[in-house]
Amino acid sequence: MSELKNDLLLRALKGEQVSRPPVWMMRQAGRYLPDYIKLREKYDFFTRVETPELACEITLQPVDQVGVDAAIIFSDILVIPQAMGMTVLMEEGKGPSLPNVVKTKADIDALITTGVEERLGYVMKALSLTKRELNNRVPLIGFAGAPWTLLCYMVEGKGSKTFDKAKQFCFTQPELAHSLLQKITDMTIAYLKAQVAAGADLVQVFDSWSGMLSPADFKLFAQPYLVQIADAVSEYAPVILFPKGSWYALGDLSKTTASGLGLDWSVTPSLAREMTNNSITLQGNFDPSKLLAPTKQIKKEVTEMIDAFGTQRYIANLGHGILPNIPVDHARAFVDAVKEYEGASVKA
Amino acid sequence: MSELKNDLLLRALKGEQVSRPPVWMMRQAGRYLPDYIKLREKYDFFTRVETPELACEITLQPVDQVGVDAAIIFSDILVIPQAMGMTVLMEEGKGPSLPNVVKTKADIDALITTGVEERLGYVMKALSLTKRELNNRVPLIGFAGAPWTLLCYMVEGKGSKTFDKAKQFCFTQPELAHSLLQKITDMTIAYLKAQVAAGADLVQVFDSWSGMLSPADFKLFAQPYLVQIADAVSEYAPVILFPKGSWYALGDLSKTTASGLGLDWSVTPSLAREMTNNSITLQGNFDPSKLLAPTKQIKKEVTEMIDAFGTQRYIANLGHGILPNIPVDHARAFVDAVKEYEGASVKA
Repeated sequence: MSELKNDLLLRALKGEQVSRPPVWMMRQAGRYLPDYIKLREKYDFFTRVETPELACEITLQPVDQVGVDAAIIFSDILVIPQAMGMTVLMEEGKGPSLPNVVKTKADIDALITTGVEERLGYVMKALSLTKRELNNRVPLIGFAGAPWTLLCYMVEGKGSKTFDKAKQFCFTQPELAHSLLQKITDMTIAYLKAQVAAGADLVQVFDSWSGMLSPADFKLFAQPYLVQIADAVSEYAPVILFPKGSWYALGDLSKTTASGLGLDWSVTPSLAREMTNNSITLQGNFDPSKLLAPTKQIKKEVTEMIDAFGTQRYIANLGHGILPNIPVDHARAFVDAVKEYEGASVKA
Repeated sequence: MSELKNDLLLRALKGEQVSRPPVWMMRQAGRYLPDYIKLREKYDFFTRVETPELACEITLQPVDQVGVDAAIIFSDILVIPQAMGMTVLMEEGKGPSLPNVVKTKADIDALITTGVEERLGYVMKALSLTKRELNNRVPLIGFAGAPWTLLCYMVEGKGSKTFDKAKQFCFTQPELAHSLLQKITDMTIAYLKAQVAAGADLVQVFDSWSGMLSPADFKLFAQPYLVQIADAVSEYAPVILFPKGSWYALGDLSKTTASGLGLDWSVTPSLAREMTNNSITLQGNFDPSKLLAPTKQIKKEVTEMIDAFGTQRYIANLGHGILPNIPVDHARAFVDAVKEYEGASVKA
């Protein structure tokens, strides 16, 4: 790890002194990048995900073209339900669908929970290849979906404004829900350990739908599984937890073995620091829609964001994935604004 | 007003002592009620909204059938963009669409901002008729969409996961955005005053999409207009503001002339009380999906919710609209649990 030329992200996660905050963007690989769109026209989604050379190429694009301080492997959180035996369809521009949802104990019993290293061998190959191609320029991030978020898709069968089928499953059959969450958790732990073994320098766990849960239900259906993953994986590599919408859980999660917490833009930096007692590295939380603003305004607001978070124990990022309609020079303006903050920091 | 047989809601909003908390449910009129579904099969959406007799009948259904402590007039927040001259289409089960969105200064200049009492005369007629039919059994609630939420639809043209077109409009052309927000605000104030004159005992302002905004942007694009509406209307009737997802604004909004604040389920009762310094009536915040749980569990969790909010300065409600797939007896279990809390309260 020490051979990394740019180790800002790892230093920030360890709480070590950094010259400026590291910066990367959730969903930075794909979507808005013209070179990605060209690949999308030639190869379908799962071909891009399952071909290590393509996943590697896509992963490197934002490092080369936007200048982020970390690469995050191009993949999808739904590869875990797939590896557990579920069918996952991905229609371009339509979002995922899982035609055979989990409904019963028999459905849960039928799920596969072993052999993730082989079943998702293409992810490990993509990581190894990317690690080599990166040539230690920046750290490589692995990732997985959080158990609650994966349950949402596995039970609901598709995206939803309310995920009420998934919630109904949890509220009416909590024992089944917990057995499903535990199976996903076990599989995810093995998956993330394998990602680290294959070359990931750190991992992030995306709980994209945790904010659908009340604070009490988050403690029942999301938090215990996030904690298990952090405990099991953080011996091997730093873990960032991103419970989108669950600002209420920041205090609890700051006391776990995770090294960092991702924030969406509904929470102010000062409140997030207060809730976490300034004891953990925070990551976020620029409103992704604000990358549609003029670049001058982006720079101004990024500077204000860093002023508010401080330069230490901080990773500049968006508050959720970058939107498909962001001009590349606006993404670059975001990254540059963080890099240029060095000067402001020296002035201060 | 004093002639109301059940004035629990108005007393709670005034901070007067009540024997138990009042209860109603957002979107209680419509959707999940079999008698509503029958009307939906006979009359299209705007016929139901624009025919005072139908709107009245739908408004009364949950009072008669579920036993709520207030009626809320059956209507839609998009009648204001319609009254301002925009085309609004409503396809059953698909959500609204506005084919000619607001893009330019000329589009804003072309919006109508007068004569709302006549343009939406059918709403006033429905209110008067319902007020008469209610025969003072329970108070009648009028409502409107908040300016930010209406801007979202008027600029985006339809529902959205991110409303990034609406946000782009605000971030790139803030002067235009503010002139649009002000026009909506002026129209809304006139509309709500007319609703009170026609028979509404109180009004609620729905800011369904305010939680999409960061705390700083909420202060720019949502809060000032909510405050204007509260200031202008609260001389005539109590105003409840419901800024969904904007828990961060509770402190600021508790200091306005509004009588009540609606909460979604992401905030705990204790934190909401703390943020509002226990100085304003709070309304909410049962997770609507939890009405899919067994009725025994609904009763248990409603009791816990009232325990946490307290019986005074509190209105039991959901944290957002009731879902279409809720069994009527589950809705009734929610309402009954609040009514039965009287006993628990005496015990305590």
